[in-house]
Amino acid sequence: MGGIFDTGLDRTAANHAPLTPLGFLERAAFVYPEHPAVIHGRVRRNWRQTYDRCRQLASALNRSGIGKGDTVAAMLPNTPEMLEAHFGVPMAGAVLNALNIRLDADTIRFMLKHGEARALLVDREFSGVIREAVSGLERPPLLIDVNDPELGSDDAASELDYEAFIAGGDPDFHWQPPADEWDAIALNYTSGTTGDPKGVVYHHRGAYLNAVSNQMVWAMGHHPVYLWTLPMFHCNGWCFPWTITACVGTHVCLRKVEPVKILELIREHQVTHFCGAPIVLNGLLNAPDEAKAWLDHPVQAMTAGAAPPAKVIGAVEDMGIAITHVYGLTEVYGPVTVCAWHGEWDQLPLEQRARVKARQGVRYPMLEGLMVADPETLEPVPDDGETMGEIFMRGNTVMKGYLKNPAATDKAFKGGWFHTGDLAVRHPDGYVEIKDRLKDIIISGGENISTIEVEDVLYRHPAVLEAAVVAKPDEKWGETPCAFVTLRDGQEATEQDIITFCREHLAHFKAPRKVVFGELPKTSTGKIQKFNLREQAKQL
Amino acid sequence: MGGIFDTGLDRTAANHAPLTPLGFLERAAFVYPEHPAVIHGRVRRNWRQTYDRCRQLASALNRSGIGKGDTVAAMLPNTPEMLEAHFGVPMAGAVLNALNIRLDADTIRFMLKHGEARALLVDREFSGVIREAVSGLERPPLLIDVNDPELGSDDAASELDYEAFIAGGDPDFHWQPPADEWDAIALNYTSGTTGDPKGVVYHHRGAYLNAVSNQMVWAMGHHPVYLWTLPMFHCNGWCFPWTITACVGTHVCLRKVEPVKILELIREHQVTHFCGAPIVLNGLLNAPDEAKAWLDHPVQAMTAGAAPPAKVIGAVEDMGIAITHVYGLTEVYGPVTVCAWHGEWDQLPLEQRARVKARQGVRYPMLEGLMVADPETLEPVPDDGETMGEIFMRGNTVMKGYLKNPAATDKAFKGGWFHTGDLAVRHPDGYVEIKDRLKDIIISGGENISTIEVEDVLYRHPAVLEAAVVAKPDEKWGETPCAFVTLRDGQEATEQDIITFCREHLAHFKAPRKVVFGELPKTSTGKIQKFNLREQAKQL
Repeated sequence: MGGIFDTGLDRTAANHAPLTPLGFLERAAFVYPEHPAVIHGRVRRNWRQTYDRCRQLASALNRSGIGKGDTVAAMLPNTPEMLEAHFGVPMAGAVLNALNIRLDADTIRFMLKHGEARALLVDREFSGVIREAVSGLERPPLLIDVNDPELGSDDAASELDYEAFIAGGDPDFHWQPPADEWDAIALNYTSGTTGDPKGVVYHHRGAYLNAVSNQMVWAMGHHPVYLWTLPMFHCNGWCFPWTITACVGTHVCLRKVEPVKILELIREHQVTHFCGAPIVLNGLLNAPDEAKAWLDHPVQAMTAGAAPPAKVIGAVEDMGIAITHVYGLTEVYGPVTVCAWHGEWDQLPLEQRARVKARQGVRYPMLEGLMVADPETLEPVPDDGETMGEIFMRGNTVMKGYLKNPAATDKAFKGGWFHTGDLAVRHPDGYVEIKDRLKDIIISGGENISTIEVEDVLYRHPAVLEAAVVAKPDEKWGETPCAFVTLRDGQEATEQDIITFCREHLAHFKAPRKVVFGELPKTSTGKIQKFNLREQAKQL
Repeated sequence: MGGIFDTGLDRTAANHAPLTPLGFLERAAFVYPEHPAVIHGRVRRNWRQTYDRCRQLASALNRSGIGKGDTVAAMLPNTPEMLEAHFGVPMAGAVLNALNIRLDADTIRFMLKHGEARALLVDREFSGVIREAVSGLERPPLLIDVNDPELGSDDAASELDYEAFIAGGDPDFHWQPPADEWDAIALNYTSGTTGDPKGVVYHHRGAYLNAVSNQMVWAMGHHPVYLWTLPMFHCNGWCFPWTITACVGTHVCLRKVEPVKILELIREHQVTHFCGAPIVLNGLLNAPDEAKAWLDHPVQAMTAGAAPPAKVIGAVEDMGIAITHVYGLTEVYGPVTVCAWHGEWDQLPLEQRARVKARQGVRYPMLEGLMVADPETLEPVPDDGETMGEIFMRGNTVMKGYLKNPAATDKAFKGGWFHTGDLAVRHPDGYVEIKDRLKDIIISGGENISTIEVEDVLYRHPAVLEAAVVAKPDEKWGETPCAFVTLRDGQEATEQDIITFCREHLAHFKAPRKVVFGELPKTSTGKIQKFNLREQAKQL
């Protein structure tokens, strides 16, 4: 059966090539060498220059003995060097580990060690935390200092300057695509609700496909101007470093999410697209009216996870910003579902429109499977908009797996589907809507906060007997951590004491904003009833 | 080296799926079930209905014993059934062999036999030729009669009616993606100017990637309305059956290329995109002014191969039709290069703009390699716009190979590149421009003469309707150019007039030494048969 089509028709160098997003850069530089590729402060670079710098970075890494399968970490905000790392590192055959710049030294140390980083690009804003992080390492990575004039700091973590480093590389470096499209391109650590962070491994095939899928879903067209409001360390900027390059667009860099600055850049560079957590949109709304009035061309915003409330959607749309709602996780290269819009929904009243827009929607064209099903049996739930089940995904934009953690990988892929841990319903039209999280993760300003991590710190406080942390809804941040604490008999502590203690032991954004003292509600078997606490936190 | 990223991170059902365009149909039907999918005469079908019919076709084929690796041929114009075949046949695991409806019975018989077709869908317009073609076959395929009300013929080639056939199939048929993305999806015979036609085999991976690449190159966005002016039997309609479905657009079918009808459909259905040879554009220009005036919205046209002359481009653009020029061959799934436009070229005067637009351009984002090189050594030519070389391609949208013809496949892929047989120059900006077919080039006194260049001049002569130039053996020069010319009705020109005109516009050695007037011999697809003219020239 099928014999004639399988005979003498094999893969050859002529008709098979590994899928990789790296080729998009070569094409952009070849076809539109003069087109603006990167804007950052006063820096302007076209695609030829950007390609040359990426090749120099790749070449310099190789010359430093870093190559196939080695990890190169980056502690960088959204600067041109961070974009260059997304190409230069894999062009060297290496794997990019973009670190969350808000993390503390201990967590970073863990990641550098676990990921076996051979080199680390450091922006001067983070010299202190990186010095501390690497101090305890047996084999510290090669530190490369990135001196961003937009920061203007004297505090270098290393004497090896990025510009000097890449100057030692060949701008004509003859990079090789990966031998196999299954080869790793990036490593991204999840915050991890329990235990240590897990290292999510991406491959070239998935990065390529999700980059293209973004472009399809968002109908981006040629030469978009993209503002980097979304951190590139989040799922590699949802693959947009590769998407924008595939579209031969322009990357407008941004160190910090500052609403007035964002509006300024949107106007100045005629930005067409940006992504971000709802908090970014919120920020724009709170900008002075004068700055808001600068928007005089249509802008597209993609936002993820919890969609903003109707009020925010309406106000943002009034500013001329159209919102596309997507959903994803670190394990799936960023967004892989979209609330695909139907023209007729434009006629709905704002409240209803916002309710529809809040759905996580349907699969991206390049995610092959999406279902809401029983977490144990994987039996799909009815499309009734009421029955809750776990969201499952399968396809080429699901991670390679967790680094050095086959048990976690097997668990995540049990039954041939990726278990998202998110609980949702499926509406009669097939659109998925998240209702709750299996895990109790808190999302604050777009950052995941593990409640267990915060609880661990609380338990270390000498006066604390019991503690539980849940999300408290917050207009600005989406959610903030709220702690419920029972003190030990005869011990005393104020709310401020507890918060200060947590800030000493955690990244500040993870510290509770609110502490409530008293008994904790429990089930008959002694488990703390978090859903009950969440209800209480809502009322506070 | 690289060990940690290759351990415990294997392909599983959760994170790996074969690439196939079939999933685009499932998604279109799931997300936009009510959106118009197909328009044909009075027939209107939405995506849910179209998906159901494709599943019925697949199921019915399976129930007839046709499955994995079997060939299903189609002798159909651009009707809904032809579109359904592009999904239903591969959903059954089978391979679609779309036949050129202009072919004669002998050639079709050869194809049916060589491709081992198990079934054949026949439009009634071709009942006669098909009856003749299958009469001589030892194992004739199962004939399925497609009765298009737009034709309204009583002449059925078979008693088995398409509608009755698919009515026996299950609209909920649980189709399977291919086991391997390398599995064949289509078989397309080249016209082959000499010898037997060669069967070009496409796989699911390539069809998927070129479908997506079309959408990127053309910035198609959501819900395009696509008019089928391009035959779906040409490289599977350049993969547009899959592209338009991926974009959840609307397919507007069309049996015949009739200018007034085309303009009517464009207006009625607000068509946004269509493809076709330059002759299609020419036809529109020759339509009555009244019909041309119907165009009151922007329309995109993609045209391939020889770009139309400046006059045509200017006139078409004046009608509100923007032209994108692409290039490809049957062996590469249709178009794989594009004259990617630069905004600043809009400022050029028409003549210059047309000259730029005539270039075949640069690689599609999903074709990995494109070069102009020495046909023997594969050494790239300099980017000087003058040195001729052969166009070579490599990548995932290059065919699987020629069916049952490993010798031809090996030859076509020699050196790890697909040999196109087209001669071109590369301009300093990297854009490729075809100068001739390798076998058509004339070598006179050691100088290369591009027949296309000479033909371009001939076409500029007001009396010339059609022209073709071939080599005529010459004792002194080796070869000299010989022109075959058809004059416009009512126009006159002598051999000397034509030669003089050419010498005014060309280097003298490039001007024809001999001009022959009369009809030009053509293939069934309308290509001028140069081998036939070469034979004639030898006898002169």
